[in-house]
Amino acid sequence: MTRRQLVQLIRERQSFLCVGLDTDPDRIPPHLQQEEDPVFAFNKAIIDATRDLCVAYKPNLAFYEALGAQGWRSLARTVEYIGDTHFVIADAKRGDIGNTSRRYAAAFFEQLACDAVTVAPYMGRDSVSPFLGFEGKWVILLGLTSNPGSADFQLQPLAGGRPLYEHVIRTAMRWAGPDELMFVLGATHPDELAAIRALAPDYFFLVPGVGAQGGSLEAVARAGMNDQCGLLVNSSRGIIHAGSGADFAEKARSAAAALQQQMAAWVQRAFR
Amino acid sequence: MTRRQLVQLIRERQSFLCVGLDTDPDRIPPHLQQEEDPVFAFNKAIIDATRDLCVAYKPNLAFYEALGAQGWRSLARTVEYIGDTHFVIADAKRGDIGNTSRRYAAAFFEQLACDAVTVAPYMGRDSVSPFLGFEGKWVILLGLTSNPGSADFQLQPLAGGRPLYEHVIRTAMRWAGPDELMFVLGATHPDELAAIRALAPDYFFLVPGVGAQGGSLEAVARAGMNDQCGLLVNSSRGIIHAGSGADFAEKARSAAAALQQQMAAWVQRAFR
Repeated sequence: MTRRQLVQLIRERQSFLCVGLDTDPDRIPPHLQQEEDPVFAFNKAIIDATRDLCVAYKPNLAFYEALGAQGWRSLARTVEYIGDTHFVIADAKRGDIGNTSRRYAAAFFEQLACDAVTVAPYMGRDSVSPFLGFEGKWVILLGLTSNPGSADFQLQPLAGGRPLYEHVIRTAMRWAGPDELMFVLGATHPDELAAIRALAPDYFFLVPGVGAQGGSLEAVARAGMNDQCGLLVNSSRGIIHAGSGADFAEKARSAAAALQQQMAAWVQRAFR
Repeated sequence: MTRRQLVQLIRERQSFLCVGLDTDPDRIPPHLQQEEDPVFAFNKAIIDATRDLCVAYKPNLAFYEALGAQGWRSLARTVEYIGDTHFVIADAKRGDIGNTSRRYAAAFFEQLACDAVTVAPYMGRDSVSPFLGFEGKWVILLGLTSNPGSADFQLQPLAGGRPLYEHVIRTAMRWAGPDELMFVLGATHPDELAAIRALAPDYFFLVPGVGAQGGSLEAVARAGMNDQCGLLVNSSRGIIHAGSGADFAEKARSAAAALQQQMAAWVQRAFR
């Protein structure tokens, strides 16, 4: 999906919501546990309930890999079911030497036909560049993550005074433009989000950490939005496991709708 | 596998060789392409040909994930076929927020029953700690990797003057001891390897980059060995794709034997 198509979806749906499909098999309601593929059945119900409220879905690879080959089947069926009406992010946090990153690119862009993959920057340029140059495909590079451990390395100042995450972002902006590169910036760091928006005015940011991890949508939108919206805000557990009974999909829809309603006002402001 | 068991294997086999199973489907010889599972058939032949020469196998997850669910089946069969006579490393370079890293630990330690998983440090302590505390299981944390991109971030000096990779290693040594934590240190950086051996005398290092990437076994052993050996040296393409015809397994054995013979002298020196 191109940047233009993504921005168009955001305007049409008045939403920059990404629904994280971190599907926990132990939290799938009992009535779906008897299905031949409970993870896919659960995801299908979540997708049906939220399609018109979000622009992106983000399957979290760990939850599928923990189920082995069956998990990959559930993941592939899920991505296929979503189709091309949404931006699909493989949340994989990959990154390895060139010949290996090329295989991961094949896994996520060709085998699974996702639009984007999250990539960890530690191994540098030749670990990231194999994911670039696929038409309509994206790298979403970790910048400043939402977890407490972001203080251990990402926030450490380099010799020049800048924190590591800022050096990562400045460096990666020389590798790729805003048509194929986004950054992960956690909702738990709104001040840094505003500073990175000033540094990278045109790049999209994928923002996790709203909801279960404590970040505020209001603070994120205020700090991070640009005139093309420029944000994808993710919620995972807060939506997909909002309920645990037979009505889980309705509960998920309510949680997604509450976020979408807040987002609509911000989208109108961005494009006015 | 415990540290004591690993050291015992090294002494018995006079080897600290790790064979990297970066199995490229396009380089599987024609006579195996007709098998029901060519990747497993190839790996089985490589394992049969090298079992007595190495102490570890390291499947590279990217090569299996690029084949989807079928790739995971080939991987699971491979790990099962290796059995408990070798140290099995899932080369996955994972790392994510706590609830996600816990799923990856389940994928590699429980679903696949590997002994170790490679982990990327960028997200900090709470992304690494979910992989710790499994009896006989190991985290192998990226320190200084063998690729050119290691200069982009890992070698950058922090405000105190130390390069990032050294700060990563010093910090991670506070998280876990040498019975459950190793570091990845590329063979292309022998000077840094010697410095890190002085800093972390008891930790094992997994050293990629000998062979195809240009590192020297001699230089690695001289710089990195301790009195328990303390090294696992990996070769992937240099062994498994040493030949491309019907005799590929013999060619692989010859390449592995050449490394093992060099290693034997170093093992004798370490334990004398």
